[in-house]
Amino acid sequence: MTTIPAQIQDDADLVETTLESILKDLAKGPAPKLVEAMSYSVLGGGKRIRAALVLGAARLVMNGPENEGVCRVAAAYECLHAYSLIHDDLPAMDNADTRRGRPSCHMAFDEATAILAGDALQTLAFDLLAGPATHADGAIRAGLVGDLARASGAAGMAGGQMLDLEAETRPFSLDETRSMQALKTGALIRAATVSGGRVGGASPDHLAALDGFASRLGLAFQIADDILDRKADAATLGKPSGQDDNAGKASYVGIFGMEGAEAEASRLIAEAGDILTKSVTKTSPQLDYMLDLSTFIIRREY
Amino acid sequence: MTTIPAQIQDDADLVETTLESILKDLAKGPAPKLVEAMSYSVLGGGKRIRAALVLGAARLVMNGPENEGVCRVAAAYECLHAYSLIHDDLPAMDNADTRRGRPSCHMAFDEATAILAGDALQTLAFDLLAGPATHADGAIRAGLVGDLARASGAAGMAGGQMLDLEAETRPFSLDETRSMQALKTGALIRAATVSGGRVGGASPDHLAALDGFASRLGLAFQIADDILDRKADAATLGKPSGQDDNAGKASYVGIFGMEGAEAEASRLIAEAGDILTKSVTKTSPQLDYMLDLSTFIIRREY
Repeated sequence: MTTIPAQIQDDADLVETTLESILKDLAKGPAPKLVEAMSYSVLGGGKRIRAALVLGAARLVMNGPENEGVCRVAAAYECLHAYSLIHDDLPAMDNADTRRGRPSCHMAFDEATAILAGDALQTLAFDLLAGPATHADGAIRAGLVGDLARASGAAGMAGGQMLDLEAETRPFSLDETRSMQALKTGALIRAATVSGGRVGGASPDHLAALDGFASRLGLAFQIADDILDRKADAATLGKPSGQDDNAGKASYVGIFGMEGAEAEASRLIAEAGDILTKSVTKTSPQLDYMLDLSTFIIRREY
Repeated sequence: MTTIPAQIQDDADLVETTLESILKDLAKGPAPKLVEAMSYSVLGGGKRIRAALVLGAARLVMNGPENEGVCRVAAAYECLHAYSLIHDDLPAMDNADTRRGRPSCHMAFDEATAILAGDALQTLAFDLLAGPATHADGAIRAGLVGDLARASGAAGMAGGQMLDLEAETRPFSLDETRSMQALKTGALIRAATVSGGRVGGASPDHLAALDGFASRLGLAFQIADDILDRKADAATLGKPSGQDDNAGKASYVGIFGMEGAEAEASRLIAEAGDILTKSVTKTSPQLDYMLDLSTFIIRREY
């Protein structure tokens, strides 16, 4: 496994601290047991890629360090992501007993608690974005809520999950698989990057460049996932490369082969980098971070 | 059953039309099957009490008819309410096969679809509130998101659901039952009323009066639910009055008797009416509607 670059690790630590403080306050409320289940799932790990994109995009636009508002937006994206994982793992969905090497939320608590913890983490994400501490301008805060809602609802992540359920009942072409993955994971990656820019005060042109960068990054992320799946299958499960758990879903590796998929991911990351570089007047540590982050995202396990 | 007063029925029809139009647009997106499940649950019925409170409070403040933004806020509250019912009915929660006399969402579709439909209805609620069509002022839109998020998250409705799960494991005092119900249903009733005022342009004093009105109304609503449960138990299920499905939960009727509970609900509605009447300079059809609505809410089935 590639070691996580120092700044990405620092950002993961920063969002962890922010989340801890938010959840500690929430645990003083009427339902500490629920907050315990939420904390179990949202704290303690992960590469925090969505948070890093929020922080990185905001700093690029601000040309300097992040503030409390930016951290709240980063935390909101991690809450939303954690909710989607809790519900994905439920018996009626992927029926996953473990997550990141420990019991999934419904195994550590129970199914009813896991449903509610996911529900409340989604709510918390919107609560964080809308709160006055996030930005002085209400229109920015409402814009942040809109970014996340569009990316995660029926026309975004939840819609992608639904298509994923459908993919178990009939064969999906590469185009269909691509659309499904773009909704399932790509939409949130784009929204995190755009929202980072928005809370940092980006101009419409800046936002468009961030969106262009993140859309390529999202696609590269999906290809990298495909590659990781195949490598994991071949290494751990002893399955021949090229066979997926879900044979009905076309995949990049299945169609283009391992080398072809790796080349396509690299091409997309280079294109993403060009878009972002052209949108700024000069290079900066903030730009370098975004470029490092995009490379890390596709190289994260290989 | 009491017939629904004409204006309440008109408002139910208005929110139905608004929701139909929103969902029709959403069905053109990538996951029409998901939107079908969402529509199944949110369309086609219910007294739309939360929507009526939004519409009524907004008209009271505006001193005139509602606009598109008010209708969107009313629709958002019905989406949020529908999501909570879908998740409540799930096998791991109340395991209810029917809802309003027809199959519950997970019976009509499947459990995975129902989980996602609930998730996406929650998201849609926030999307509606944050959208520019709701109000020209972004700070108002962010305020609406904050109202709903606080009322429905871990410190509101979801927290109340969690306490309800706990009530199955140990006896709950009347105070505990009251707090649990205030979170489970009262919080959303208050937020709907306050948000109606907010989108209608209420002053802080007006908002405080609406909140005072709605907090009494929420409590009366819970007592009325208790009374209805007892009557239904005695009539349909043949259970002796005073025994609840969940014997561990103290109830108003159990402690004060049927007459005592009815008197308390009436007292709260009168108090609610006084608060609202004192907050306006003169009587108006808009004030009368809010008073009618509060009476209807506690008399809805008896």
